[in-house]
Formats: sequence, C-alpha cells, structure tokens
Amino acid sequence: GVVNLIKKGDKVIIPVNGEFSSRLSQMLEWAGASVIKLETQPGENASFETVKEAFDNNKDVKAFYCVWNETSTGTMINYLDRVKDLTSRNDSYYVVDGVSIVGGEELKVDKWGIDIAMTGSQKAFAAPPGISPIVVNERTKKYMIENPPHTMYFNLPRYFKYYEESKHTPFTPALPLLYAYREALNMILEEGLDNRIKRHRTCSDALYSGLSAIGLTPFAKDDSRSTVVIALNYLEGLEDKTFRNTLAQKFRVLVAGGFGNLKGKVFRIGCMGEVQRYHVMRTISSIASTLDLMGYNVDAKAGLKIAEEKLKDL
Amino acid sequence: GVVNLIKKGDKVIIPVNGEFSSRLSQMLEWAGASVIKLETQPGENASFETVKEAFDNNKDVKAFYCVWNETSTGTMINYLDRVKDLTSRNDSYYVVDGVSIVGGEELKVDKWGIDIAMTGSQKAFAAPPGISPIVVNERTKKYMIENPPHTMYFNLPRYFKYYEESKHTPFTPALPLLYAYREALNMILEEGLDNRIKRHRTCSDALYSGLSAIGLTPFAKDDSRSTVVIALNYLEGLEDKTFRNTLAQKFRVLVAGGFGNLKGKVFRIGCMGEVQRYHVMRTISSIASTLDLMGYNVDAKAGLKIAEEKLKDL
Repeated sequence: GVVNLIKKGDKVIIPVNGEFSSRLSQMLEWAGASVIKLETQPGENASFETVKEAFDNNKDVKAFYCVWNETSTGTMINYLDRVKDLTSRNDSYYVVDGVSIVGGEELKVDKWGIDIAMTGSQKAFAAPPGISPIVVNERTKKYMIENPPHTMYFNLPRYFKYYEESKHTPFTPALPLLYAYREALNMILEEGLDNRIKRHRTCSDALYSGLSAIGLTPFAKDDSRSTVVIALNYLEGLEDKTFRNTLAQKFRVLVAGGFGNLKGKVFRIGCMGEVQRYHVMRTISSIASTLDLMGYNVDAKAGLKIAEEKLKDL
Repeated sequence: GVVNLIKKGDKVIIPVNGEFSSRLSQMLEWAGASVIKLETQPGENASFETVKEAFDNNKDVKAFYCVWNETSTGTMINYLDRVKDLTSRNDSYYVVDGVSIVGGEELKVDKWGIDIAMTGSQKAFAAPPGISPIVVNERTKKYMIENPPHTMYFNLPRYFKYYEESKHTPFTPALPLLYAYREALNMILEEGLDNRIKRHRTCSDALYSGLSAIGLTPFAKDDSRSTVVIALNYLEGLEDKTFRNTLAQKFRVLVAGGFGNLKGKVFRIGCMGEVQRYHVMRTISSIASTLDLMGYNVDAKAGLKIAEEKLKDL
C-alpha cells in the first residue's frame, strides 16, 4: 500500500490519532513522502472539514491515506463515503487501511472512489492470521506497473504479472492459511454481508450501552466510536493488570489493555468476526462480576437488561 | 537479511549463478550496496579461489552473501566452512541464504563463522510454507540494533526488542504455521539431525547414480551438485511439458521444469524433507517408464539396481 504507490517527495495527507495511524505515517515518511499529518487527540478523529481544509491548502497532494479503524483507541472514521469529493479534484489516490474492520462494517470500495483498500485475515474476517488481503483498482494498478517499486517481496506489479500469466503468486504462499481464508470467506457469504455488518453494529451498540449502564464510559468521542473495537475508560483507581487478569483467569474473558500512554487508562474489547449475542452478554456479566469482586458497586442487571434489549434486533 | 544489514554504499561480494542468487544480488543493489558479483555459468559455482581473489581485491568489503543451494539449477556451494578465513580478515559479515537446504545438509553456523543464516519452513524442514527462520549472532544483532533499518515489517531490532520484553513478535504472527513448524522441528529431533543429513545425502546419491544409469546426465558440475535438488538435462528431443505431464498424470510424480533460459532444457527433482527410500525408487521407476512410453529405450533395471545398492546405507 505504501511502497507500491509512494515515491520520494510525494505529498500525502493522513489523519493521525493513535498507534496504527502513527505507524502508517512513519512508513510514508520512510518511503520518502512529504507527510501532512492531521493530528488529533486519541479518541477523536480529524473532522471531514479538517481533511477538506488540508486538500484546499495542498492542491498538489498525491494521495490520502487513512486508518479506517484505529484499533489502539477504538475510533472509526465515518466519512469514508465523502473523501472522493476531495481526491477527485486532482485525481489523487485514496487509500484505506481497514485492517481490523473490513468484513464487519460497510465498505463500498468502488462507489466511494477508494483506490487501494487492505485488511488482515484475523480480525473481522475471522480467519487465522497471516494473510493481508488487498484490493487495487485498475488505474492504480496501471500506475504501479508503470512505476514499479524497488522491492523484491511486496512488489505488486510482480503479483499482477504472475497472476495474469498463471494465476500463481510470485513466491510460495502460506497455503494452509489460504484454505482457511477461503473457508472464512464462504462463511461470510453464508451469513450474508449485510447480516454480518448488522450483527457487528448491534453487538457493539449493546456493549457500549450495557457497559455504560454499569458505570463505565467509552473512551472514544460519540461521533468517532468504532463498531468493532470498544475502548472504555477505567474507573478511578481501577488497576489494569488486576482487572484484566481476574477477567481472564476467573471468566476466560480476554480484553486488551491500552497502547502507549493509554496503558492503564483504558481497556479494549474486540467485537469482531464471530461476535454473537452470547459474547456480549457474557462479557458484560463477567466485567460486572469482576468489578464487584474488586469492590466496586455496579448494577449488572441494568447493563444486561439494556444489552438484551439492543440484541433483540439480531 | 539484506535491509537489516546493508546501508547505502556498502561493498558486498556475492556468487551469482542462477535465479535465486540473481534475486539476492538485486535486493542488495536496491538496498544501495555496491555489489561485486562473482558470476559463473548456471550449473557451476564460483570457486573458493575466485571468492578469495575478490576478498584480496576488496579489503573494504562489508559482507559476503551467498545462496548456499541454488534451487534453480541444482548446485550447492561446498566451501561454506572455509569462508571465515576471508571474512575474518576485516570482520566483514558472512550471510548464508539456506532456503532450500537447511535441515537437509550440515550447517555449522557458529563454527563456520556465519553471522546470519536464513531458510524457509517448506523445504528441508518439511513444514508448511509461510515461515522464514533466521539466526543472527550477537555481534550482528548489536550492529542491527545500533543501525536500525527504515522498515516497519522486517525490522529485526524491533523483533529483538519485543522478544526480550515479552517473548512476543511485533506483529500478530501466522500462529497455525508456528504450531506446525514446532511439530516439524520435533520430528527432526526425533530422527536426529545426523541421520537426517545422511538420509538426504544417500537419497540424492542414489538419484544421481540411478538416473545416470538410465541415461540421464546431471546438469550441475561434479563438484557443485546439490544434495537436495537434483537437476538433470533432458535427453535430445525430449519435450518438457509432455514428459512432466505424463509423469504427473500417470504416476503422480511431480518434478519441476527449468527456470528462465533453462526452461525445456532441464528438469529438477526435489530430494528434501520427507524424502525416503521409496521416493527414490518410485521416482527412478516412474521416470524410466515415462521415457519408455515416450519411445526412448532405457534400462530401468540398471538404474534401480544401483539406486538400491546406494540406499543400503539407510
């Protein structure tokens, strides 16, 4: 996504608000890009107006990159459908890193004018880790072939060539993972993509509502909340390690801690892939019980009641 | 192996005699190295004397890279134990690409003064594809940490850091493959590494001898022949596709064609990983039968007899 498109001196706009958008921004810099970072506090997204302003001020921009779902903070960009109005001004490229969310939220690659989108197999696709699906549209493919990168391994023109000549990959692929990935895609088709997206939205809504009802507060701002990664602020004085270890050992419910300087301040719940009603109920129940065991006074029933109400849609 | 060690302008010596050594040489150039290629005809290796001469003429060399087993032509470098005498002159780095052979031939990394060695899981280790084992010694690790590469993904200092802090990898690894890889390593230990190497040597010896006895000739020169990839010249007029398709369809014996301008001129037999007596016998028998079906007059019995004789050692 980076080495196959970006050349030394290319101007790139990217919103940065967490670990993964920072990494992507770093990769763009290493590739020689002149990077315009739209930085916001973790938990917030650069607004569409900020993005528009950056395009207004940089008419020679080569590409817009974004991390759709910032896994480190539980935020999600919700204006992907409108970026085309900006990139179409000078036919700049529109690149979406959808690693933790593709398969769990709606992504209309062609309709929204996205040139490159990539993801990971092990998140909302619910396949084993080890495969990084990527889609590239025709005009971008043409550009890449005409301007091949100086890399041996992630050299997309080489992949295009081998695929067209013999439906092969240029190097021996991790075959067992491809079989598992195909099965995961079949399972998505069996469920139906619309049903799957609805399931993710309903489950995350139930988690946000249910956990709020027991006294926890979402970390991300209202308009930026992810439907696949739920980040929550720790209650005053609640110790990260004890909380997560209790939850893991007594209830076998695994939640992740915060990244970098959010360590100890937030915890994160994965709400992707196979997530179902019972995961939501069990998670709220176990979190409430853990808080109870740790001496906090929580109203588990209120949380479960509102979650169950929300889950009726499934 | 390349981006973590090589900086712009570094002088590197590398023998080049086939597809994979050419690729490695290209990667070194892309990394900015000044590459001294010791080119020979496919099927031959640069001699140790040629390598020595290159070191004599380049006292400021930063590293010696080599493809131990050139899979594309069935050659193998057999002086890995002597290169240390050259690299030790100015403490230059010694890097061995052992992709298709580690686990099937002897490699004394420390004793032979090798700084970096890497391989693939799917060749002589007989595990599924998708893992690239690499070993780096202490002094090289130190150099890498002090001079980290500008890459996000194959950034070894990052791997060292995560491993030391938490025995983790910096990114989600392809877990199912790691379990399979561990089992493959256990199987190697159960067999015993010495037994395993002997098995590879005996089987390749039997294949070379047996196939020579039925009238085929090895492609690689006597002193350069691989013990894990057996490349053979096609008989005059023998059509590549027909031969390999017959062998595959009628006998389920898969052999590979030649690479690049060796296409149609040689075929290659994998002799690695699980290779056993019966693979050798079946392969010679099926090749003899295929040649027979294609109208060549071959003495299958002579080939099988000498192969069986050689296989007695197992």
